[in-house]
Amino acid sequence: MKTQVAIIGGGPAGLLLSQVLNRAGVATVVLERKDRAYVLARIRAGVLEWGTVEMLRAAGVGDRMDREGQVHEGCYLTSGDRMIRLDFHESCGKQVMVYGQTEVTRDLYAAQDAVGTTIIHDAADVALHGVDGDTPHVTWTKDGHEHRLDCDYIAGCDGFHGVSRPTIPSDIRREFEKVYPFGWLGVLSETPPAAHELIYANHERGFALASMRNPMLSRYYIQVPLTDRVEDWSDAAFWDELKRRLPAEVAASLITGPTIEKSIAPLRSFVSEPMRWGRLFLCGDAAHIVPPTGAKGLNLAVSDVHYLSAALIRFYGQGDAAGLESYSADALARVWGAMRFSWQMTTLLHRFPEQSGFDRRMQEAELAQIASSPAARRLLAENYTGLPY
Amino acid sequence: MKTQVAIIGGGPAGLLLSQVLNRAGVATVVLERKDRAYVLARIRAGVLEWGTVEMLRAAGVGDRMDREGQVHEGCYLTSGDRMIRLDFHESCGKQVMVYGQTEVTRDLYAAQDAVGTTIIHDAADVALHGVDGDTPHVTWTKDGHEHRLDCDYIAGCDGFHGVSRPTIPSDIRREFEKVYPFGWLGVLSETPPAAHELIYANHERGFALASMRNPMLSRYYIQVPLTDRVEDWSDAAFWDELKRRLPAEVAASLITGPTIEKSIAPLRSFVSEPMRWGRLFLCGDAAHIVPPTGAKGLNLAVSDVHYLSAALIRFYGQGDAAGLESYSADALARVWGAMRFSWQMTTLLHRFPEQSGFDRRMQEAELAQIASSPAARRLLAENYTGLPY
Repeated sequence: MKTQVAIIGGGPAGLLLSQVLNRAGVATVVLERKDRAYVLARIRAGVLEWGTVEMLRAAGVGDRMDREGQVHEGCYLTSGDRMIRLDFHESCGKQVMVYGQTEVTRDLYAAQDAVGTTIIHDAADVALHGVDGDTPHVTWTKDGHEHRLDCDYIAGCDGFHGVSRPTIPSDIRREFEKVYPFGWLGVLSETPPAAHELIYANHERGFALASMRNPMLSRYYIQVPLTDRVEDWSDAAFWDELKRRLPAEVAASLITGPTIEKSIAPLRSFVSEPMRWGRLFLCGDAAHIVPPTGAKGLNLAVSDVHYLSAALIRFYGQGDAAGLESYSADALARVWGAMRFSWQMTTLLHRFPEQSGFDRRMQEAELAQIASSPAARRLLAENYTGLPY
Repeated sequence: MKTQVAIIGGGPAGLLLSQVLNRAGVATVVLERKDRAYVLARIRAGVLEWGTVEMLRAAGVGDRMDREGQVHEGCYLTSGDRMIRLDFHESCGKQVMVYGQTEVTRDLYAAQDAVGTTIIHDAADVALHGVDGDTPHVTWTKDGHEHRLDCDYIAGCDGFHGVSRPTIPSDIRREFEKVYPFGWLGVLSETPPAAHELIYANHERGFALASMRNPMLSRYYIQVPLTDRVEDWSDAAFWDELKRRLPAEVAASLITGPTIEKSIAPLRSFVSEPMRWGRLFLCGDAAHIVPPTGAKGLNLAVSDVHYLSAALIRFYGQGDAAGLESYSADALARVWGAMRFSWQMTTLLHRFPEQSGFDRRMQEAELAQIASSPAARRLLAENYTGLPY
């Protein structure tokens, strides 16, 4: 088998890259280790930056998002019972779209199916070969047979645990990591959201987030120790703790119900440099992980796809490899900006085990600055709604 | 002896408070443990917020400052050889005045001498009595005699090591502290400054600051381990290290010369709450210490004097004690804002022993944000030139 761009990973990064390239006449094959049902069962972030919204629209996958997604022009940061509203539109003229990553992935599958691109699921033992030469190829096994795909370039969109990043020799990679000493216990619940906008809650007992997917599907999180297990948390215990951490006026009207999903995720910041080696380009979680505070994960993957798709289209259309040469630097500049924001939001809003009274006051002073300074709110809004490409 | 307000400490906080109160007809006596020459030999910060400039002018001590001080409309933050100019005036419409704390103190002494207020130097064993009652008094010894001053109120302007703060019972005080794992080695040199504006340098080898007092008096600092001693640093070694940390274009034209003062100071953030107990009001370093990064120490003392003088004048003029009641909360709100800024600037610009590659990238990302976002520069400029009273 032969193609122009082999895409490793059929999550949103790989599917969007395939979609954008196909529309520009660049041939792709997508290899995914799991089946489609597994990919679509992953519950991830649900806040899209406006640049992501525009990328999805331009890729022809914006229709359902524009019908069913909710445009949010602000969110709340709270400290105990104090609520600080961040008005994105007033602060920086932009907004975000609340639309689940699962829905984005579903729309991308539908669009790819419609044009009949090749998406190979259940591809096991994927391996990349000749990445540092001129004729790379990819091998995998499926249904007991070994397969081979020759290509010009490989896009590694296969996430943190994928094979793409480790294909880059360890003496070329430089990794940066921060592991946070807590996790998020998240639940989905078929109840109306606590508020029309997201609430990021800083509380003595720990962080909480009241989010949503749609008017009858709420997504809530509370900070928990890494030693906690899901089975330690009954629904009743979860709702009680969530209510304690939200402002009293929000907690008083919170509608609870059975949870339909409950899981604990650790928080980590991670970046691997460079994002290109030879003919391999990393996109999304394969190269970087953000803590979920600030919802940058999917948006960063889309940002990588923006740079890489533009570079490949320029190369195939005009024979100009400049975008491919600068891909790693271009993508990383934006990655580090979002890393900084996610780290700042995480540091600002959580209780840390080693936190001193002084550190706590620094959080309060930063929240007070956000409440009092339009420049502080503008800076936060710029980051939250998405830095420019 | 009897007065209305006993002021403990004859540094800039105590002298300015005395000056402002006297001009409003409120009687004061200032008690200082040291002699005047000692007070005037202290070398401290030299950057005045615009609110401080206006306070000094309103107190009748702005003439020499306006003649000899230098108005600065910006400063530089650097990262290696990259220079980011912060334009205060463009960003927030304000500026700062470079005029040494020693000169401010000298002007205050001259003004106080002119109106003939009582400033008692060499007051030993100062003790505060009856602070939580209605008839406080202060005792001290001088020239072998015990003295007593009866008063309505006591202003504790006697610095971090003074007697005022410890007079507040320890079960009432709450202290917040952060000690930074490095110090600043500072020198004064009768040479033209490295640049027309201050340069705050973030460098792999550690922080450096190129500052000045006037066109022929430079003030430079470099971050050093707390284990270093002044005698470890020859003039030649200091200049060499300073040049390494400044951008190459600045280092190339740096004019060096003999140093006329060299000292190492530790960096600390400290706040004691409340700032009022009974009839005692703390002002300046007696209640809080900032690291010197961002030059907030003297400015915070002036801010405290602003609130306390207004409250006392309101009380004596109109019999209204509301300002006295809210003094601690009013002063602390601004203190915590400046604490946050000094901590942020210190964290942003120094090398920390335990700093990871990720932490270093966070510094670089924050500097990149300052370089690229007008909102980030505005926020920094608002803080640097002084938050509103």
